[in-house]
Amino acid sequence: MVDSIYRTRSLGVAAQGIPDQYADGKAAKVWEYYIGSRTERTESYQHFLVDLLKSRKCNHLLDVACGTGIDSIMLLEEGFRVMSCDASDKMVLHAFRERWARRKEECFDNWEIEVANWLTLPDDISKEGDGFDAIICLGNSFAHLPDFEGTQENHRVALTNFYAMLKPGGILIIDHRNYDAIIDTGRAPIKNIYYKGNCLKDIQTSVLYVNGRPSMVTLDYFIAVDEMAKSEKVRKKLALDESVYKFRLSYYPHRLNAFTDILKKCFGENCKHSVYGDFKPFKEGDKPSYYIHVIEKPLE
Amino acid sequence: MVDSIYRTRSLGVAAQGIPDQYADGKAAKVWEYYIGSRTERTESYQHFLVDLLKSRKCNHLLDVACGTGIDSIMLLEEGFRVMSCDASDKMVLHAFRERWARRKEECFDNWEIEVANWLTLPDDISKEGDGFDAIICLGNSFAHLPDFEGTQENHRVALTNFYAMLKPGGILIIDHRNYDAIIDTGRAPIKNIYYKGNCLKDIQTSVLYVNGRPSMVTLDYFIAVDEMAKSEKVRKKLALDESVYKFRLSYYPHRLNAFTDILKKCFGENCKHSVYGDFKPFKEGDKPSYYIHVIEKPLE
Amino acid sequence: MVDSIYRTRSLGVAAQGIPDQYADGKAAKVWEYYIGSRTERTESYQHFLVDLLKSRKCNHLLDVACGTGIDSIMLLEEGFRVMSCDASDKMVLHAFRERWARRKEECFDNWEIEVANWLTLPDDISKEGDGFDAIICLGNSFAHLPDFEGTQENHRVALTNFYAMLKPGGILIIDHRNYDAIIDTGRAPIKNIYYKGNCLKDIQTSVLYVNGRPSMVTLDYFIAVDEMAKSEKVRKKLALDESVYKFRLSYYPHRLNAFTDILKKCFGENCKHSVYGDFKPFKEGDKPSYYIHVIEKPLE
Amino acid sequence: MVDSIYRTRSLGVAAQGIPDQYADGKAAKVWEYYIGSRTERTESYQHFLVDLLKSRKCNHLLDVACGTGIDSIMLLEEGFRVMSCDASDKMVLHAFRERWARRKEECFDNWEIEVANWLTLPDDISKEGDGFDAIICLGNSFAHLPDFEGTQENHRVALTNFYAMLKPGGILIIDHRNYDAIIDTGRAPIKNIYYKGNCLKDIQTSVLYVNGRPSMVTLDYFIAVDEMAKSEKVRKKLALDESVYKFRLSYYPHRLNAFTDILKKCFGENCKHSVYGDFKPFKEGDKPSYYIHVIEKPLE
Repeated sequence: MVDSIYRTRSLGVAAQGIPDQYADGKAAKVWEYYIGSRTERTESYQHFLVDLLKSRKCNHLLDVACGTGIDSIMLLEEGFRVMSCDASDKMVLHAFRERWARRKEECFDNWEIEVANWLTLPDDISKEGDGFDAIICLGNSFAHLPDFEGTQENHRVALTNFYAMLKPGGILIIDHRNYDAIIDTGRAPIKNIYYKGNCLKDIQTSVLYVNGRPSMVTLDYFIAVDEMAKSEKVRKKLALDESVYKFRLSYYPHRLNAFTDILKKCFGENCKHSVYGDFKPFKEGDKPSYYIHVIEKPLE
Repeated sequence: MVDSIYRTRSLGVAAQGIPDQYADGKAAKVWEYYIGSRTERTESYQHFLVDLLKSRKCNHLLDVACGTGIDSIMLLEEGFRVMSCDASDKMVLHAFRERWARRKEECFDNWEIEVANWLTLPDDISKEGDGFDAIICLGNSFAHLPDFEGTQENHRVALTNFYAMLKPGGILIIDHRNYDAIIDTGRAPIKNIYYKGNCLKDIQTSVLYVNGRPSMVTLDYFIAVDEMAKSEKVRKKLALDESVYKFRLSYYPHRLNAFTDILKKCFGENCKHSVYGDFKPFKEGDKPSYYIHVIEKPLE
Repeated sequence: MVDSIYRTRSLGVAAQGIPDQYADGKAAKVWEYYIGSRTERTESYQHFLVDLLKSRKCNHLLDVACGTGIDSIMLLEEGFRVMSCDASDKMVLHAFRERWARRKEECFDNWEIEVANWLTLPDDISKEGDGFDAIICLGNSFAHLPDFEGTQENHRVALTNFYAMLKPGGILIIDHRNYDAIIDTGRAPIKNIYYKGNCLKDIQTSVLYVNGRPSMVTLDYFIAVDEMAKSEKVRKKLALDESVYKFRLSYYPHRLNAFTDILKKCFGENCKHSVYGDFKPFKEGDKPSYYIHVIEKPLE
Repeated sequence: MVDSIYRTRSLGVAAQGIPDQYADGKAAKVWEYYIGSRTERTESYQHFLVDLLKSRKCNHLLDVACGTGIDSIMLLEEGFRVMSCDASDKMVLHAFRERWARRKEECFDNWEIEVANWLTLPDDISKEGDGFDAIICLGNSFAHLPDFEGTQENHRVALTNFYAMLKPGGILIIDHRNYDAIIDTGRAPIKNIYYKGNCLKDIQTSVLYVNGRPSMVTLDYFIAVDEMAKSEKVRKKLALDESVYKFRLSYYPHRLNAFTDILKKCFGENCKHSVYGDFKPFKEGDKPSYYIHVIEKPLE
């Protein structure tokens, strides 16, 4: 029966009074453990992000979808100054724990972490001076923000808040899965450009069309528990009695052109904007898994 | 928020412990009133059904989706002997009320009405002699039976129960919207072949694909309250404070070929089967709104 | 877990959008069967009610909590003219079925039955002439009407509507359990003055005090399935896999003095009012199971 | 309507799949802010606890209901070595934040904090050597653990787990409100022995009796928002649009004698046990607001 319920819930932005998608029970623990276990980022991801930020002389970063902190930690280790936030306090708890474990390292001692909501970001995070050099919003996080009204109003509010937190000349690095391909083929690829690991066995892809327009994508992740949680003790702690665990997340299916349009609406038609497909400059005909947009706040 | 929840619920077959789709509050009242107000069947519908039943020498009929009783009443008036059932006791209540109002007419005095569930039909309805001459399941009712498991098991159980209630040589007349067209175009047509009336202003069509396969169609009906409930008193009684009311129903999208296949699995590969599109014999290339299948239980 | 949830829900009056207490699944079927099986009223109940109505020259009655119709049927058989109503359409369905089965008897042919809500009674039921000779509201039904706001506003509205439906000089016969005794002892007696039968094995009594004032009584009925549903077939139909079934209903605990007060507020301080305990005129010191109030609408 | 729902939920121990009592929305934020604002402990509380622990030569403490960390911080400042835990990760997040802010202080650098469940405590917390010198479970926390089955089984499991984490000769310091008085009078006193502050305006007390036995106490706290959140900015952040905010918590009403009995069942009939009323040795006839039990794990 549960399988017949499709709903959009917020991950990146916890709607008031609505538990975030990680708020309940066993599935959340499995997902956290799964996310937490993906500690080995691919080198291509790391190179792309660090090179991009260094080439743009970015130093002070805001990671608006930090989750357990995996990206932020990489950036701290690379010498950046980082403020991290997430709407899920369960996720922020993980980041807090990581920070504590390495508090004797100077770069971790300066790491700021907050619970924050994209829709009220300027109230939740204090901007220092002119603003951040760069904001990153990666790992397909932005697509978690639902569009209940069908107007993308929430998307615009969040992007405008990102804009407000940037210094003039600062950049927003934001990604989304290749939803064009998911919509065309009806299936999400299992391949993930960000993380290594092989415990993800399958993804069931549900696409909801409203009056012919794709409006929600729901992915059911089938996770092989034995490969994820190798020790008996961990499986007991997670109360994992099945060998494959299912976890459901819903997304707004941002299409390449439509997402470019909304970015330009919020940053100005003439702002600098470029698109990458799986970490390489995107050119017509490519079929990447993920698109990454880099967009600059104009100097004046 | 409610708009972001898509779920399949049963109409024709009330799952145990799950309220049927008409079980709650104001929307149900509007829908009942809407259904109840559609008292003028189109002549083409009436002719088709009566001619078909008479040409097949059918007398004793079972209407397995009687709703408020509109079809059953027409058939009673045409001289057939009718047993009617529905899984929704709210609907059966309406039918009871109609029967009571006309109890002095002989054909109504013989009208049998029961609450019954397709999945347990032989337990809920008593078969007389060899069985019924014909079973009708019309008005897109069968598509209300959901397929939670993704195997169509419930569909097969229901059809097999219909088979069991028929006499050898008896026929099942069963219809479904043209879901092939809905899936192709992404939109359900507003035109309705069964009923007159113009208070239905719009239909919003949602189609859910799972791994590329259409698995659920959800229709949001926008009903013009002023045209439906012309008197102030009725609007007050229905607590209708808005001028347009929305009602949501979900369906399993039976495609023409797939539905033909499952019918033949339940009635035997060699059974007689014919298809009509909007009451005319269907031929390749037609684009009807509704398909009607007529399938015969073999004599041996 | 379910056992830790106590809530008040409406039986006699279905709040808009809230399923009535009989609206879901298996428990409802058991309860209906239980209620339906209590076809043998005690003689003392029958004598009391009929004698009272005849001594008052009442002919046209309104039974505002008819349930499956058991009381109404007794009154029809005694020669009264009866209109019956209930807020639960599941209950009204039963009454409709009874009426249909005996439609050839003249008194049943004149039996009127409606779905109606006490809070909107004058809109739901049409009053003939000056109004009814008597209204009966028995079987502890009035206590099902909850008091969400803690002001008894709904109780006053319902009683005022009863008043409005009576002719001048007409009487309201309304009862409630002896909640004073339940509150004092913490236990509801199993003994029932209205019906015979011995399938009720136990009642668990929960009393909720708010700031020291009793505000809700919840009764968990333990019903012996074997004694209620003697045939295997019935047990199968009700899906009764357990030998004892539990059913929960919540009540507002009307105390004798408080209920007398609210009746007089609605009917006028000087109206005629008398109280019976278990069908006998109540006198100080009695410990009846049920109190019955008889209150008269003043002639002018 | 919400006011008519009484249920027991866990605070100290989050049942699997059930959000803890602080898991949803605005009320949680208010409560956290309220709790967080109570930074001034009464001196009598502080003296009592510190003197008791020092007189017993306790050094290594386990605070099993740390909440935002207020008690643990006081004990750290007094020189104790502390491990803190709570079942609510929202609460632990607060404690993490406090620890981080004061990480340069040596005693905070050694503070261990974990999310842990009383029912699985030995799995969630690692015991060092023979065990802790003392466990504290204060602030009426234990009463948050519900008794769904009516057998107090969960209470016994939690107490047995506390026992297991103590070294021989170690002590458990555990408290509960004076539920005997609440039950007798029907009202909980507003006075609080632990914390200063005057933003708590009223408490509405609901007591649920099952078959005459008090089984749940629900307290509705009415908090004066203006006094709690003095700045406009905070009120905006908490989305406080009302001047008084209501927060509901449910408790198991431990009575003095019954709680003494269950403690002795878990620690042994002959263990040393003493009771304090509002920080003073309890003697018959006292009417304290809170009872504190001190019970020792036998040396052999």
